[in-house]
Amino acid sequence: MSIIVLGTVALDTVKTPFGKRELMLGGSAVHFSMSARLFTKVSLVAVVGKDFPQKHIKFLEQRGINTASVVCEEGPCFKWEGEYVGDLNSANTLRTELGVLAAFRPELTPEQRKTKYVFLANLDPEIQMHVLESMSKPRLLGVDSMNFWIHHKKAQLIRLLKYVDIYVANDQEARSLSQETHLIKAAKALHAMGPKMVLIKKGEHGVLFYSDKFILSLPAYPTDKVIDPTGAGDTFAGGFMGYLAKVQKLDQLSLKRALAYGTVAASLNVEGFGVEKTGKLKLRDLEERLGQFKKCFHF
Amino acid sequence: MSIIVLGTVALDTVKTPFGKRELMLGGSAVHFSMSARLFTKVSLVAVVGKDFPQKHIKFLEQRGINTASVVCEEGPCFKWEGEYVGDLNSANTLRTELGVLAAFRPELTPEQRKTKYVFLANLDPEIQMHVLESMSKPRLLGVDSMNFWIHHKKAQLIRLLKYVDIYVANDQEARSLSQETHLIKAAKALHAMGPKMVLIKKGEHGVLFYSDKFILSLPAYPTDKVIDPTGAGDTFAGGFMGYLAKVQKLDQLSLKRALAYGTVAASLNVEGFGVEKTGKLKLRDLEERLGQFKKCFHF
Repeated sequence: MSIIVLGTVALDTVKTPFGKRELMLGGSAVHFSMSARLFTKVSLVAVVGKDFPQKHIKFLEQRGINTASVVCEEGPCFKWEGEYVGDLNSANTLRTELGVLAAFRPELTPEQRKTKYVFLANLDPEIQMHVLESMSKPRLLGVDSMNFWIHHKKAQLIRLLKYVDIYVANDQEARSLSQETHLIKAAKALHAMGPKMVLIKKGEHGVLFYSDKFILSLPAYPTDKVIDPTGAGDTFAGGFMGYLAKVQKLDQLSLKRALAYGTVAASLNVEGFGVEKTGKLKLRDLEERLGQFKKCFHF
Repeated sequence: MSIIVLGTVALDTVKTPFGKRELMLGGSAVHFSMSARLFTKVSLVAVVGKDFPQKHIKFLEQRGINTASVVCEEGPCFKWEGEYVGDLNSANTLRTELGVLAAFRPELTPEQRKTKYVFLANLDPEIQMHVLESMSKPRLLGVDSMNFWIHHKKAQLIRLLKYVDIYVANDQEARSLSQETHLIKAAKALHAMGPKMVLIKKGEHGVLFYSDKFILSLPAYPTDKVIDPTGAGDTFAGGFMGYLAKVQKLDQLSLKRALAYGTVAASLNVEGFGVEKTGKLKLRDLEERLGQFKKCFHF
C-alpha cells in the first residue's frame, strides 16, 4: 500500500571529518523516501525553490518516487548547513535558510487525502495538523518533530500527538518534551500524551520502541564507516513505515521486523554523504545487511 | 570450571532519586560474584578492614563464594560514597576512602595460581600485573580498569593489556584510553593494544563486543525500574565470565550467550540497591529474563 510523506526537500551543506559536500540533495522527506521506496510506492509532499536543480527531481523520479506534489515556489530552496565533529553523533548547525519553506502551506490532491499510510516528518506542527485535518482517517500516522517546535509550539505539538499512531523522536527531543531523563520513562510519558506507539531514536545506540503492549530495544547495526549521519533518523523512519505499509499489519512480529529494517537502512545511510549510498540501494542490499544484523541475536 | 576474581570489597553509601543506603556491601569483586556464582564456583581475592561486618562474609559464603582469600587488615574498609541524579547513567563520587585498599598486595594460594578463569576487576594495574605474574597461564583472563588508572598509570595498564584475553571498559574509559570518540574505532584501537577481545559497556545503551572475528552490539534489557546502577558493569562481567567458565568454550555462539547473560544480570542488578536484588538471584531468574530478552530479537 502506498505511503505519503510530508517533509522537507533541502539543499544540504555538510562537513564531517571525512570531507565536505555543498548544496547536495537532502531533507527529511528525501531521506525518508530513500528507504521507504524499497517497500512501497512513495508520494512526496514538499516545496522547493527556483534554485532547485531539475536533476534532483529526476533522481527522485528514477527511484519511483511520486514528485507530483513537490511544488516549486518563487524564492530560494530551504538550505541547511551543518558540521559534525568528534563521535559524529550530533551536528552543529552552522546556518539555516528557510527560503520557500517559511510560507509553505501544503495541499493534498483528492487521491492523496485517502492515503492510508502517512508520515509527517519534522515541520511546524500547525502545518502537520493542517495536512492531517485534510485527510480521511489514515490507518497509520507517523509524526516526527524537533526541539525547535517543542520549545516554540509545544501546545500545538501536544494537540497533534493525540491523533498520532507512531511518534518518532530522538533521545534529546523525547527527554525535552516529556521532562523525563530516563528514556523508558520518557517514552511512557510521551505515550500518555496520545501516540499509540513511541519510537525513540538514539543514534549510534539504536532505538527504543514503546507501546502499551511491549517495549523493545534494538542496537544500531555496528558499522565503523560513519561518514555522514545526516538523515539517518529519517532513513530509519522510512524503512520502518515503508515495511509496515507493505505488510499492512501491526502485530508484534511485523513491528519488530519494521524496526530491524529501519535500523539497517539507517546504518547504510550513515556510510555515505547525503543520499550517495541510499540512493543506490536495492531491497536485496537491505536484506543482506538484515541477515548480518540478525546473526548478532542468535544466542 | 571455577573462576577467581580479584577486586574490591567495599562499604558503599549510595543516594539515588529512590532513596539512600549507608555502608552497604559493595565493591567490584562482590558485584562480579553475585552473577558469576550462578554459573560456577567463585573464589574472591580482596581485602577488608577491621570494621567490615562479619555478616557480609556470611552473606557471601551462603551464596557459595569462597572467601578464604578475603584478608582482613588493620585499618578501615574501602568506602565509596556516590550520588546518582537525572538519568542515573553516571555517578557523582562524593567521597572515596581507600583505607586498607591503599596497601593491599594480594597473594594467591598455590591452588588459586592454577585457576584457568580469572577476572582482575578494577585495581591498580601494577597490582593486577603482580597477581597475573604469580599465575600459571590462565585460559581466559578478563581485566577491568577505570579512568583514574588510565590517567595515572597508563603505561602500566598498556603493558598489562598485552596479556589480556578480554578487556572490559565503559564507554568513557574506552574513549579515553584509545583517544577515539567513535566506539567501534575505540574498540579497534584497544584491540590493537593486545586484548583478543574488547567489551565496551555503555550503561543503558548496552554493550559493544569487538574481536578480530566479529563485532556485536547488544542493547541493555529495557527495564524502567532503575533504582541503583552501582555495580551493573561488574555484574555484567560476572555473568559474562561466569558463563564462559561454565561452558569452557569461546566460540561465537558461547560468546553471544555470555554477553546476553551478562546483559540480563546487569538489568537485575540495577533494579535494587547494592546487592539487594542480585543477592537473591537464582539461575532460573536469569533464564526467565533471558527468555524475555530473546523475544526482542525474534524478527
